[in-house]
Amino acid sequence: MASQAVTAQSIDFSKWYNEIVYKADLADHSPVRGCIIIKPYGYELWEAIKGGLDRRFKETGHQNAYFPLFIPKSYLEREAEHVEGFSPELAVVTIAGGKELEEPYVVRPTSETIIGEAFSQWIQSYRDLPLLINQWANVVRWEMRTRPFLRTTEFLWQEGHTAHATHDEAEAETLQMLGIYADFAINEAAIPVIKGRKSEQERFPGALRTYSIEGMMRDKKALQSGTSHNLGQNFAKAFDITYVDENNEIQVCWTTSWGLSTRMVGAVVMAHGDDQGLQLPPKLAPYQVVIVPIARNDNERGPVMEAVGRIRAELKAAGIRVHLDNRPDKMPGFKFNDWEMRGVPVRLEIGPKDVQNNSVALARRDVPGKEGKQFVSQDGLAVRVNDLLADIQANMLRQATEFRDANIHWVEDDYGRFREIVADAWAYTWFCGDAECEAKIKADTQAVSRCFPLDQEPGEGRCIACGNRATERAYFAKAY
Amino acid sequence: MASQAVTAQSIDFSKWYNEIVYKADLADHSPVRGCIIIKPYGYELWEAIKGGLDRRFKETGHQNAYFPLFIPKSYLEREAEHVEGFSPELAVVTIAGGKELEEPYVVRPTSETIIGEAFSQWIQSYRDLPLLINQWANVVRWEMRTRPFLRTTEFLWQEGHTAHATHDEAEAETLQMLGIYADFAINEAAIPVIKGRKSEQERFPGALRTYSIEGMMRDKKALQSGTSHNLGQNFAKAFDITYVDENNEIQVCWTTSWGLSTRMVGAVVMAHGDDQGLQLPPKLAPYQVVIVPIARNDNERGPVMEAVGRIRAELKAAGIRVHLDNRPDKMPGFKFNDWEMRGVPVRLEIGPKDVQNNSVALARRDVPGKEGKQFVSQDGLAVRVNDLLADIQANMLRQATEFRDANIHWVEDDYGRFREIVADAWAYTWFCGDAECEAKIKADTQAVSRCFPLDQEPGEGRCIACGNRATERAYFAKAY
Repeated sequence: MASQAVTAQSIDFSKWYNEIVYKADLADHSPVRGCIIIKPYGYELWEAIKGGLDRRFKETGHQNAYFPLFIPKSYLEREAEHVEGFSPELAVVTIAGGKELEEPYVVRPTSETIIGEAFSQWIQSYRDLPLLINQWANVVRWEMRTRPFLRTTEFLWQEGHTAHATHDEAEAETLQMLGIYADFAINEAAIPVIKGRKSEQERFPGALRTYSIEGMMRDKKALQSGTSHNLGQNFAKAFDITYVDENNEIQVCWTTSWGLSTRMVGAVVMAHGDDQGLQLPPKLAPYQVVIVPIARNDNERGPVMEAVGRIRAELKAAGIRVHLDNRPDKMPGFKFNDWEMRGVPVRLEIGPKDVQNNSVALARRDVPGKEGKQFVSQDGLAVRVNDLLADIQANMLRQATEFRDANIHWVEDDYGRFREIVADAWAYTWFCGDAECEAKIKADTQAVSRCFPLDQEPGEGRCIACGNRATERAYFAKAY
Repeated sequence: MASQAVTAQSIDFSKWYNEIVYKADLADHSPVRGCIIIKPYGYELWEAIKGGLDRRFKETGHQNAYFPLFIPKSYLEREAEHVEGFSPELAVVTIAGGKELEEPYVVRPTSETIIGEAFSQWIQSYRDLPLLINQWANVVRWEMRTRPFLRTTEFLWQEGHTAHATHDEAEAETLQMLGIYADFAINEAAIPVIKGRKSEQERFPGALRTYSIEGMMRDKKALQSGTSHNLGQNFAKAFDITYVDENNEIQVCWTTSWGLSTRMVGAVVMAHGDDQGLQLPPKLAPYQVVIVPIARNDNERGPVMEAVGRIRAELKAAGIRVHLDNRPDKMPGFKFNDWEMRGVPVRLEIGPKDVQNNSVALARRDVPGKEGKQFVSQDGLAVRVNDLLADIQANMLRQATEFRDANIHWVEDDYGRFREIVADAWAYTWFCGDAECEAKIKADTQAVSRCFPLDQEPGEGRCIACGNRATERAYFAKAY
C-alpha cells in the first residue's frame, strides 16, 4: 500500500491531497458522514500542535477548563447573528435516556454561548478580570462538503474565551492570540502565515472584528489556519456578563474568542508536501529520524543491529524522536520510499560497511536525491543530527517563504491584471471592503478577500473592484 | 466564598463531597442535565492524571488515535449484550443540518463498536498484531442519578482498545493495563487500590471478564476507579476482526478494552479529603506550594516581595509547581484557610521577620496545626521543599493504606457478623459468585461484591451467602 506512487501535485492537487492523507496513514475513512478517523500518525502530529500551543497559552496566563458538549438550543438564540450563522450546521439531540427531550440539545458548534453563561456567574468585580480560559474539545458542524482535516463534520480544536474590562484590553488580547498562532505556525509548522483582519463579510457571526492567519498552500490557494475574534460587547450583553468597577458601578464586559483546529494538520500537509509525499517540519514530526538497517543475511544482521541499538539509544537520550523500521518482510528500497512518503525529516541508513567504517548515511527529506545524502561518522552523531534537524526546519520555512513571496503580486488600478493574477496566485491590492465588491470579485474570479494584513503602511488608493477610495490593502486568493 | 466552613464528613459525607467540589473550585454547575463544568483547578488535576497515564500507555507501546463522536445506531446492535447494556443510557442525534437523519447517530457511550469496525479494516495479517490503540475522549451516558465527577452525563476518559492473536495475549494485556491503573493510583494518587476481577453480574456488557481497581473512600464506601476488560472474541466476531496467521489460515482476533475517567478526580477528593477540605497528593496537585506573603504596610511589603520573588523563581527552577497568592483584598488568615480547603500540600509563609532571619515558615497540609509547621532557612530551600513534598506523598499513601486496612475485616461462616461489618466497612469473605447470592446480600445489606482480588492464596471455603463451596474470596462493601 505505502509504496504506491501518488498522483502528482501538478496533475491534480486535490487528488494528491486526498491520497496522501490516507496513504501516509494520517487518517482513515469513517462510517459517519463527513468524519474521519485520525490515525496514530496524524494524531501524534496533532499532539505536537497541541503541545506547542498549550505551552504558549499557559505562558500568557490562560487556564484550561471543560464545558459541556451539549448546549440548550435556546442559548444559541440569544445572540441574533450567532444563531443565524450556525443554525444550518447544527446536529441536534432530541432523544436521550429513551425519552424525547423537552428542550433539544445542540451538539456544540462552538462554545461562546454556554461559556458566556458561565462567565456571567464567575465575574462579579473588576478584580475577576481579565478572565482567561481555554478549552480543548471536539465540535460538530454539519458541513455540506467535507475534506479530511480541512473541513470535517466533527473536528478537534481549542477555543479560547476571555473577558476584559475595556475594549482596548479585549483588542490587545485578540491580537496577542493572533500573534501566538502566527508564532506557532511560522516557528514550529514552518508556514509563513500572514496576520490580518477579515472583511466584514468573513467576520465570525456575532463578532466585532475577526482576525486570521492565512497560509499559502503548494497549489497557491489560501488556507485560513486560525482565527481570533474581538466579540465586543455582543455576547456580554446577550449573556449578561457584567462587573462592578472600582467606582462601584456596573459595567458590561468585553469578550474575545479564538480557535485553531485539526485543520492545521491539513495546512502542514499542503504547505510542505511534494510529489514524493508529506514533508514534516522537524519540530512537529512524530518521528524526526527513521533508522533503516540494511543487512542481507543473519551474518550481517548481528553487527548491524548491535550498532542500530547503540545509535538509537544515543539519539533518544538526546531528545530526538527516533523510529526503527525493522519490518522483516520489507526491503530497504520499499522502506526508503515509504518514509519519504510519510515525510520523516531524516533517514538514517546503516549497513555492514558502515559498521566497519564507524559511519552512517543521513538522507534529508527536504533535499532530494544524492545531494541530500551524506556519510558521517558515528562519533558525535546526536549533535550532528540535532543540527541537521534545525537546518531542515529553517530550510523548510525559507522555501515556503520564497514560494509565498514569488506568488504574491501587487496590482493597482488594473482589474484585468488582477483577474489574471488570482487565477493562479495571490493578489495584493487596494480594497474598500464593501460586500458588493467582494461578491463581484468572487463571481468574476472565484477568489475571495483573505485579509487586510496588519503589517501595512498607512495610505490610500482606489478599490480594485469599484474604483472608490480605499484606505487599506488586502490579499485576494482562491481559498479552502 | 472560599472561607466558609464545610459540612463535617462525620455529619454528612455526601454533603461534604458536594460542597467541597464546588467550594474548592474544582467544578461548577451547568445548564445541561447531569453535566458539570470542570473549572481550571479541577481540569489541571485531570491534566496531571492524563499525563501520568499517557506516559505509561506510551511506554508500553500504545498509540493514541481519535474516532468519531457519533456511532451509527446499527453498530451498537451487532453485539447483543452490549446494546442491551447501553440502550437505556443513549443520547441520540436525529436531526442534523436542518434535516431528519435516515439512520440516527448515537453519541458514543463507549467506542468498542466503531473502533471494532476500524480494526476489522486495519488488521489483515498476524504481522498487524498486536494492535494497541488508546483514545482520549468525551463520552455520554444518560444516567438517572448523577454526582459531580463520580457519575455525570458527559465525562472525559481514555479508552484503550487492543487486538491480539490469542486469548492469553489478550488476557496478559488486560492485566497489564489493570496493573498500570493500580500503579498510577497508588504511586501518584496515593490511593492504595485493590486489583481484582468483577463478578459475572458486574461484568462489562459484552466482555468475557472485567477487572477493576477498587479504592476505599473516607466514608469507607468503595469506588471503582478504573476497569480493564478481556472482551474475548465477542466483538471480534460481531465486527469480523480476523487475521491470516503464519500458516495462511484465517483466525478470529481476541480484543480488550480498558478505561479510566474523570471519576478519578472524585476518587482523589474522597480518599484524602478531611473536614478542612481537599488534600491533594503532591504528584497530582496543580499547585504544590502556595506562597502567602505577610506584610502589614508598604514599608514591610517591599523587602517581603523582594524575597518572595527570589524564592518563587528558585522553586520554579527546581520544577516545583508554585503559586503566589498576592490578592490585595484578602487577609493572610483567609488565605491560609482557603488554600487548606483547596488542598495545596505545602504553604510557604514569609513576613518581615523571616526576611531579617533569612527564614520562611513551611506548613504541610497532611499534618494539621503547629506540629505540621516548621521554620527553615531560605538557604537550600528548593531541596528541602522537594524532600517535604516526597514525604507528604509517602505519608498520604501510608495514611490511606492504614485507614483501608483498619476497615477491612475477614469473616467466615457468619452471615450475621458479615452484615454488621458491611454496615460501615469492607468485608472480605468466601463467595461463590452466584447472581442469587449477590442479589440476596445486596437486598439484606446494600453492599455489593467489589471484586475477587488477584492477590489471594488458593483455597476453598463456604460461600458467605449460600454456604455452598466457594474457591475464591471477595470484597463486599457499599459502593458509589
